[in-house]
Amino acid sequence: MGSLVEELVGVLGAAQVSADETVLASYAVDQAPVLDFQLPEAVVFAGSVADVQAVVRLCGAHKVSVVARGAGTGVSGGAHASRNSVVLSLERMNRILDLNPEDETAVVEPGVINAALNEAAAPHGLMYAPDPASFRTSTIGGNVATNAGGLRCAKYGVTRDSVLALDVVMADGSLIHTGHQTFKGVAGYDLTGLFVGSEGTLGIVVGATVRLKYLPREVHTIAAFYPDFRQAAAGVLAVGRARVQPAIMELLDGGTLAQLDEIHGSDLSVRGRSLLLIQTDGFGAAAEADVVRSVLAAGGARVSTEATAEAEQLVELRRNSRGAEVDDQYRVGEDVAVPRSRLVDYVAVLEDLAAEHHVNLKVVAHAGDGNLHPTFWVDRKDSAVDTDAMERLNLALDASVTAALAMGGTITGEHGIGQYKLRWLGLEQPEPVRQLQRRIKDLFDPAGILNPGKAI
Amino acid sequence: MGSLVEELVGVLGAAQVSADETVLASYAVDQAPVLDFQLPEAVVFAGSVADVQAVVRLCGAHKVSVVARGAGTGVSGGAHASRNSVVLSLERMNRILDLNPEDETAVVEPGVINAALNEAAAPHGLMYAPDPASFRTSTIGGNVATNAGGLRCAKYGVTRDSVLALDVVMADGSLIHTGHQTFKGVAGYDLTGLFVGSEGTLGIVVGATVRLKYLPREVHTIAAFYPDFRQAAAGVLAVGRARVQPAIMELLDGGTLAQLDEIHGSDLSVRGRSLLLIQTDGFGAAAEADVVRSVLAAGGARVSTEATAEAEQLVELRRNSRGAEVDDQYRVGEDVAVPRSRLVDYVAVLEDLAAEHHVNLKVVAHAGDGNLHPTFWVDRKDSAVDTDAMERLNLALDASVTAALAMGGTITGEHGIGQYKLRWLGLEQPEPVRQLQRRIKDLFDPAGILNPGKAI
Ligand SMILES: Cc1cc2nc3c(=O)[nH]c(=O)nc-3n(C[C@H](O)[C@H](O)[C@H](O)COP(=O)(O)OP(=O)(O)OC[C@H]3O[C@@H](n4cnc5c(N)ncnc54)[C@H](O)[C@@H]3O)c2cc1C
Ligand SMILES: Cc1cc2nc3c(=O)[nH]c(=O)nc-3n(C[C@H](O)[C@H](O)[C@H](O)COP(=O)(O)OP(=O)(O)OC[C@H]3O[C@@H](n4cnc5c(N)ncnc54)[C@H](O)[C@@H]3O)c2cc1C
Repeated sequence: MGSLVEELVGVLGAAQVSADETVLASYAVDQAPVLDFQLPEAVVFAGSVADVQAVVRLCGAHKVSVVARGAGTGVSGGAHASRNSVVLSLERMNRILDLNPEDETAVVEPGVINAALNEAAAPHGLMYAPDPASFRTSTIGGNVATNAGGLRCAKYGVTRDSVLALDVVMADGSLIHTGHQTFKGVAGYDLTGLFVGSEGTLGIVVGATVRLKYLPREVHTIAAFYPDFRQAAAGVLAVGRARVQPAIMELLDGGTLAQLDEIHGSDLSVRGRSLLLIQTDGFGAAAEADVVRSVLAAGGARVSTEATAEAEQLVELRRNSRGAEVDDQYRVGEDVAVPRSRLVDYVAVLEDLAAEHHVNLKVVAHAGDGNLHPTFWVDRKDSAVDTDAMERLNLALDASVTAALAMGGTITGEHGIGQYKLRWLGLEQPEPVRQLQRRIKDLFDPAGILNPGKAI
Repeated sequence: MGSLVEELVGVLGAAQVSADETVLASYAVDQAPVLDFQLPEAVVFAGSVADVQAVVRLCGAHKVSVVARGAGTGVSGGAHASRNSVVLSLERMNRILDLNPEDETAVVEPGVINAALNEAAAPHGLMYAPDPASFRTSTIGGNVATNAGGLRCAKYGVTRDSVLALDVVMADGSLIHTGHQTFKGVAGYDLTGLFVGSEGTLGIVVGATVRLKYLPREVHTIAAFYPDFRQAAAGVLAVGRARVQPAIMELLDGGTLAQLDEIHGSDLSVRGRSLLLIQTDGFGAAAEADVVRSVLAAGGARVSTEATAEAEQLVELRRNSRGAEVDDQYRVGEDVAVPRSRLVDYVAVLEDLAAEHHVNLKVVAHAGDGNLHPTFWVDRKDSAVDTDAMERLNLALDASVTAALAMGGTITGEHGIGQYKLRWLGLEQPEPVRQLQRRIKDLFDPAGILNPGKAI
């Protein structure tokens, strides 16, 4: 193996290759639970498309896998190193190559941070719409590879909907360009869409042309506090029934409010047992907010119009509601989505499961999309004496996933399958559909060197 | 061959199979120019998923191709019969199986007419957003297979953006389900996206779950008449610069206005040499319309606020602006798209080409998307003495396509490649990208029976 590292250094230079133990360890995992810890053979920091091509070719020749990595904020283990792998970090390829305010498009390298693109776009009255809560740290390449969602996706669409074209390094080291620079284009098959969400298993994204949307001039934020969680979930449906499309519609349960208060010294729990946080935006924002407020008040909410600073702070708190916590033996979390009409039923199931398995529950949801992030947890101090905590947590978790599927839902609304969710994929997709995906994988990567054991 | 028809009749019954010459002839072509006329061996009218499976299996056994067909409104020859083929019409599978106003989704058979779905959704305050100008006749299955665009796609997205899940009969007759019933879902590869726009070459769409959007309560229509076409095109950019997102932004040149007047007895040509027709919708519609009007007036337009009836009539005229005309030796039309910033330049190129090649020009454009439908034509009476008209038309056409590509555009914004545009595909996509698509085709359809010679 020494020789691969030497060859990598020979081609890229020492500054771009590391086999240092601490570097290997810190690039070995993303934010997901670790089932099978592996150190990579090396971490390579690509500076150019040619670097990526060289790394893929060298790894191919040595039969070593390539694990692409953006910022490592993924929560499904998609960027976990596997046995006999090199981690290929794209974080240094972080230039915005073009931002054309008349075309309303940008061309970026994969390592550009989501927030950096938004900052560059804002002075032109534009935004890059898909905004995972990790937008201050995650990369466009990682967002593309996971088809990331976010807060304002119910109105503006997920990552897929903003990607027009991609530059991709294939498993054989060749470079292809997919898609179109125009808003619309239907020449041939949708290869772009196939790479979006493929979690580094079909090719390495080395460039993306994205569509920008108009930055809304006006934003109204509504905080609706409810006496219980199910009523808050019903609020989501009531807004839908009024046929108002908010930009943001986030649901936070009592557990989440308590945790935010603990961390940030806020007083959210005093204000209610559950919070529905809604933003309307654009020219109709004020009128939409009026409708939303009256609909929610009629549904039992204490509705407050937030002054701008406080409103922004609430949304900020929500974006941070996962915090820096990582799932471990004391907490497990998921990313299911259900058809909107089942939101209230599903929230009820979650509460029942927590009670049944004697674990705590905490839920945040991109509720406009029916996408929920429930977390089951136990107190750390308890678990010293509570040896079966992990088992109870996992029983609750598995049951929550099965319940989502039974309601016509999916096991992953936005985080991807990665390594961690493979255990549930067979529950959602029957064998012929999985088989078809494996055959696509074989077609794109016959030697199986691109992020093996992930996504499908 | 007699035996295939007999077997089809044996399995489906005589009412669903026709080998009648007039039927064969009327199902032999769609609305595109015909390069290679072929009669199919039979036309089969599927009534169920099982019918489709049986037809595909029988055709496979007989090594006869299957050309899927919706309403046959395609304009690229995607539904043209090929040698040794059966045309599989989905038009009788036209039931809306489910329309769930709380989920904001519908499940439809492929033969459902776009307008029928919209009519069913409207009482619930919902709409199926993608609205090709053919929405009164084209099918959802055909829209999915072509990834159809339409008038309100700049704001609401193309067909792909509204399709959540598909039921697809594969080349071996097996049935798979792709995607998710939820708004978001990222489990595995995006097979749904791969089938969308694949023009019947990867599988037969026998069901679709689509997302519905909110029917806007308020719509404002603005007609802006300009003294020339280039200024009108500049208006599109001016609206963009004001960061207002209209629902509809259609551009009609002088040739189109004259033709509409001739057919409908309207007086559009008197009002200006070019028309930019804009609709804003939603809660902000009035405020957006105000901005649009002032921006356009500043750019030299005669801006009128249309009273509702007249406004609707103008949009209606636009939807009919292709009319029932079919391209032939006297007229050829295209479907290019260019980056928005190049709209004015491109329109100038079109006018220059028409002058250079002594042909007439007529352009309608989904201008918000940069998607243009230029038509070059000559008078029929002229062409009796004008034997090189076809050559001049095709020179202008080819040059218009090359010019779009040179500006970073695409050869097809929404109509698809079909059979007719294969001649230009190599100009847009280099061999490795085409090769990859051929390999995907081989993977899905090893015997090559699904709509061979189309799309890629
Ligand atoms: C606090 C927090 C909040 C979050 N909120 C959201 C949210 O709201 N919505 C959401 O969708 N996700 C969210 N996530 C998850 C995560 O941020 C997203 O999945 C994000 O898209 C990952 O980007 P990344 O740059 O960190 O990629 P990584 O974690 O480094 O990689 C993610 C996957 O993409 C692959 N990959 C990365 N770069 C490339 C490339 N250039 N080419 C090919 N493959 C590549 C990796 O191999 C891996 O499979 C959150 C995570 C955290 C920690
Ligand atoms: C007046 C007019 C206006 C138009 N305006 C627009 C417009 O604004 N935007 C736009 O995008 N297009 C437009 N079109 C083109 C056309 O209407 C679209 O391409 C439409 O999506 C075709 O639908 P269809 O049901 O007629 O399909 P068909 O023409 O029957 O078939 C189209 C393609 O799809 C395949 N196909 C059809 N059904 C299935 C199925 N169930 N499974 C698999 N493959 C299938 C066929 O094999 C063929 O390749 C217009 C056409 C006309 C005549």
